[in-house]
Amino acid sequence: MNIAIPLFAGFAALDAVGPYEVLSRLPGAQVQFVATERGGQSTESGPLTMVAEHLLEEVPHPDVIVVPGGFGTRRLLEDEQMLGWIAAAHETSQWTTSVCTGSLLLGAAGVLRGLKATSHWLALEQLREFGAEPISERVVEQGKVITSAGVSAGIDMGLRLASHIAGDDVAKAIQLGIEYDPDPPFDCGSPKTAPAELVAAVTAWSQHQEAASQHA
Amino acid sequence: MNIAIPLFAGFAALDAVGPYEVLSRLPGAQVQFVATERGGQSTESGPLTMVAEHLLEEVPHPDVIVVPGGFGTRRLLEDEQMLGWIAAAHETSQWTTSVCTGSLLLGAAGVLRGLKATSHWLALEQLREFGAEPISERVVEQGKVITSAGVSAGIDMGLRLASHIAGDDVAKAIQLGIEYDPDPPFDCGSPKTAPAELVAAVTAWSQHQEAASQHA
Repeated sequence: MNIAIPLFAGFAALDAVGPYEVLSRLPGAQVQFVATERGGQSTESGPLTMVAEHLLEEVPHPDVIVVPGGFGTRRLLEDEQMLGWIAAAHETSQWTTSVCTGSLLLGAAGVLRGLKATSHWLALEQLREFGAEPISERVVEQGKVITSAGVSAGIDMGLRLASHIAGDDVAKAIQLGIEYDPDPPFDCGSPKTAPAELVAAVTAWSQHQEAASQHA
Repeated sequence: MNIAIPLFAGFAALDAVGPYEVLSRLPGAQVQFVATERGGQSTESGPLTMVAEHLLEEVPHPDVIVVPGGFGTRRLLEDEQMLGWIAAAHETSQWTTSVCTGSLLLGAAGVLRGLKATSHWLALEQLREFGAEPISERVVEQGKVITSAGVSAGIDMGLRLASHIAGDDVAKAIQLGIEYDPDPPFDCGSPKTAPAELVAAVTAWSQHQEAASQHA
């Protein structure tokens, strides 16, 4: 079971590492980080660099694709190399998945046309540009295409995918192994539960960050 | 606010990245990954490498220390360089924290003597060796020392720490920003809720992995 996670400048670390921590524990799984250039890829929110050991073209036919999001996705929405890889890999994949705004890259690659899909709540409506129907849910499954909500949702998506690939018993063992018994300090992790002024504040902050990242 | 996260061979990726994704979003936060040698540090469960840009001695007095866990902690329980850094940094830190078996390193550095503390459920009892009182809770706060349970608990710990550092409003904004509204597929993420045979299976698997990692 070959699992490819594409990295790029400005990806969100947890988007990639949530599913990685789950899927790398699948029996027989081989996870590969791929990128347009070999080496360190910087994350969106700070100094963390994660290493992509493989070029995209070295891993053309992974069994599973997990596309992370982050502000860096915006610079890739017309990137022929990344979008071409996703589209071609999707043709032969068993599962094509995304976390957060990684779904914008799936959309731009043509994967989501006519499908229900989700994304970070701030980017949900943008999915319409790619012919997808935005759904405000944690994980949205459409055949072999699975999209998930913002950043931390990749853990939930990864566990669901693990159960599809290896069965519930294995997925449960992984969930217990990573002690995933979450206890968020606040009930505000979704715009459905957060107060309106918090949603407005985070929306404004994010628009500022997105603009800054596009000028970087 | 200078936040140091020590990395080492065999750390668990999510242990470090959960708190990183939260704390790197704090206004004015500067996160630094530190290690005994500059460069890539391999994670316990697969091919992921994360880069430590700084040597331990270059960051002797961080405001916040976040020590991740992973099977690699076992090789460091008598490592004078790492334990000496933790002990000395703790003397001047505002917050000294751990995720998962990172608490074993805090313990071995003498930080937990006489304190209540937690760890990955599989390592909880081992805390007694360091004079700590094991507590089976998601996050345990003892003054400036905060320990958290296995792997994924670092997100919960990070958000609590963010609220201490910058207030509830900022922590809530970060929680909404990373859309932390978890929806685990199974109710088995803790030995308190998992069936006994699952706990036994994961215990056996983990002992095998731990033995393998010690011979690596």
